[in-house]
Amino acid sequence: MTTLSHRSAVEPFHAMDVLAEATRRRDAGFPVISMAVGQPSHPAPRAALDAARAALEHGRLGYTDALGTLSLRTAISLHYQQHYGISVDPRRIAVTTGSSAGFNLAFLALFDPGDRVAIARPGYPAYRNILAALGLKVVEVDADASNGFTLTPQGLADAEAREGGPIRGVLLASPANPTGTVTGRAQLQALADYCAARNITFISDEIYHGLTFVGEETTALAVTDAAVVINSFSKYYCMTGWRIGWMVLPEDKVRGFERIAQSLYISPPELSQIAAEAALGASAELEVYKESYAVNRARLLKRLPELGFTIASPMDGAFYAYVDAGRFTNDSMAFAHRMLAEINVAATPGRDFDPVEGHRAMRFSYAGAPAEIEIAIERMAAWLKP
Amino acid sequence: MTTLSHRSAVEPFHAMDVLAEATRRRDAGFPVISMAVGQPSHPAPRAALDAARAALEHGRLGYTDALGTLSLRTAISLHYQQHYGISVDPRRIAVTTGSSAGFNLAFLALFDPGDRVAIARPGYPAYRNILAALGLKVVEVDADASNGFTLTPQGLADAEAREGGPIRGVLLASPANPTGTVTGRAQLQALADYCAARNITFISDEIYHGLTFVGEETTALAVTDAAVVINSFSKYYCMTGWRIGWMVLPEDKVRGFERIAQSLYISPPELSQIAAEAALGASAELEVYKESYAVNRARLLKRLPELGFTIASPMDGAFYAYVDAGRFTNDSMAFAHRMLAEINVAATPGRDFDPVEGHRAMRFSYAGAPAEIEIAIERMAAWLKP
Repeated sequence: MTTLSHRSAVEPFHAMDVLAEATRRRDAGFPVISMAVGQPSHPAPRAALDAARAALEHGRLGYTDALGTLSLRTAISLHYQQHYGISVDPRRIAVTTGSSAGFNLAFLALFDPGDRVAIARPGYPAYRNILAALGLKVVEVDADASNGFTLTPQGLADAEAREGGPIRGVLLASPANPTGTVTGRAQLQALADYCAARNITFISDEIYHGLTFVGEETTALAVTDAAVVINSFSKYYCMTGWRIGWMVLPEDKVRGFERIAQSLYISPPELSQIAAEAALGASAELEVYKESYAVNRARLLKRLPELGFTIASPMDGAFYAYVDAGRFTNDSMAFAHRMLAEINVAATPGRDFDPVEGHRAMRFSYAGAPAEIEIAIERMAAWLKP
Repeated sequence: MTTLSHRSAVEPFHAMDVLAEATRRRDAGFPVISMAVGQPSHPAPRAALDAARAALEHGRLGYTDALGTLSLRTAISLHYQQHYGISVDPRRIAVTTGSSAGFNLAFLALFDPGDRVAIARPGYPAYRNILAALGLKVVEVDADASNGFTLTPQGLADAEAREGGPIRGVLLASPANPTGTVTGRAQLQALADYCAARNITFISDEIYHGLTFVGEETTALAVTDAAVVINSFSKYYCMTGWRIGWMVLPEDKVRGFERIAQSLYISPPELSQIAAEAALGASAELEVYKESYAVNRARLLKRLPELGFTIASPMDGAFYAYVDAGRFTNDSMAFAHRMLAEINVAATPGRDFDPVEGHRAMRFSYAGAPAEIEIAIERMAAWLKP
């Protein structure tokens, strides 16, 4: 009998399990509304779909350079100029098969087994799971009201003292999943300085850029050239299913990342690269979509507390409401299963984001259509009524 | 100064470097013919393109289940029934983002750092590079004329004795890259038995299935249920750029693979899944493409020796000619660069496939259009003339 590896014993990504269960129920005819995964209900922008259709005319889609087509890398470079006023050499841009590939590549290229990498708790579960599978030591640092729900130099210093050893990497998302925290420029600068002084690699997850409702969005590139920036076309650009994202790398690290990407991914999907390039110019359409998230956000900010959920984080960006569900449950996994089974509303148990306190938390994605979110709210209202 | 990890110090995938250089030259206006990467010049089958176009009509492409849509998994299961007469539960099938994701998932899910995994030398370089990046010990076993250019129980036993410790995994490709070896049913059975008796996990790379010109193609599933089978839509189905493949897993290992896939990949690209399902029914069209490879194969079998290259392997399947270029060079990397620079013909240095003897070998992919291959041959003939 052969067995699985020890390192495969990572947690499931519970949101994906909920998605699978929701798909099974929907296929079976149940009227499922999903607030489980962070996925816009809007299709990719028209220009992206048109570009994809045009490419299908000749249909010859092949391997591209491992770091992506020069055309897309150049377009992303231009995006930094236009959107942030920052100049980035296209050669520093690596196109990836979704930000998932970006995280995996970054962890492999930057860290060796046993290295400590700090992330915020609560935070995106795949960080923790990939880090663990790759033999890295996950250092979870509390992000709560006391520190503005983000990582701070003090929090990192405390964590290093507690760990009794140095941290090699810091990974911060802004806007953050699930808390919606938008980390400001001064705070980013302080983190970057802390990392620079201690030879810590700073990884900035910016996949929710474009989706900030309160506060100002800052890229780590505005405060340092040493950061590894990870971004994606999944969220703002509504292209989850296309699996396409990018990184901005310090110049001296590009070739190391490329070497690993060549063997691990060969190249990102070409059709997605073509569509993504067109999506970069579609902000007029995408800003309308963003308005629908703003509508959802306002509704949830009002209705979730009325239903008995306490909003447990800033909700300034991304498209998630992270709530304390302690009035209803001490077992968020069971609560999520029951809600799906009984009223066909899918949401993600807090256990995904917080191994310590997530048993009483839930995350609701508000990337869906306002009309559906409204129905989901009303179903919950009837279901939770005492 | 932060630095790259030690484990990122893997070899480049030289074929991808040659591809990047060929792309630069082509963009600069040079008439490049690429025999460097294993990529059909044919587009994806018409039915696949049509299915993709239809899906773009609504455009709502999202995350699927981590192991792929039930629809595609069921269609692949049916393919095993129809093509091999083998019954495979759809739940044992995991759709992956190309076979690249399959290899990465298999290595992570099955092996822990320090475990030994045996592969054939010469062999696909990404095996070696991914294994190394994931902390596994690569055991290269000679595949040469003495053993029919494949792995044998004797070769594995010798390797274990030489290593002074047990092998945990055996990875065999049939048809093989770069040798074109087609490993027969009896040999596969012997390998599977050897592995079963020693708790070794057998991984069967079947990505070149459908492209066998001499001998009989056998899936490992015909001889064992314990194998992890990896396959792809890239080669026979002409869908390299779509990044879509699949695995067949032993039932008791599915959930472990799923857990890792959820965090590392979220899901394979949905449009590619839709197109792939349609491609499964396109064998009439694909068999015509296969004929063109057969034409190329016959030409190369005749012309390469006339040019002074010795065919160094069976060439029974896949679409590669692996040759001894020792008459011209002892530095295959330099030879590849010179050939691209001087006559705009791209091919892959043997160094990719064989760290020991690859310095005098070259691999020519014959997946391209016959007319182009013909021109490449003529350019080489003029260039190599004494």
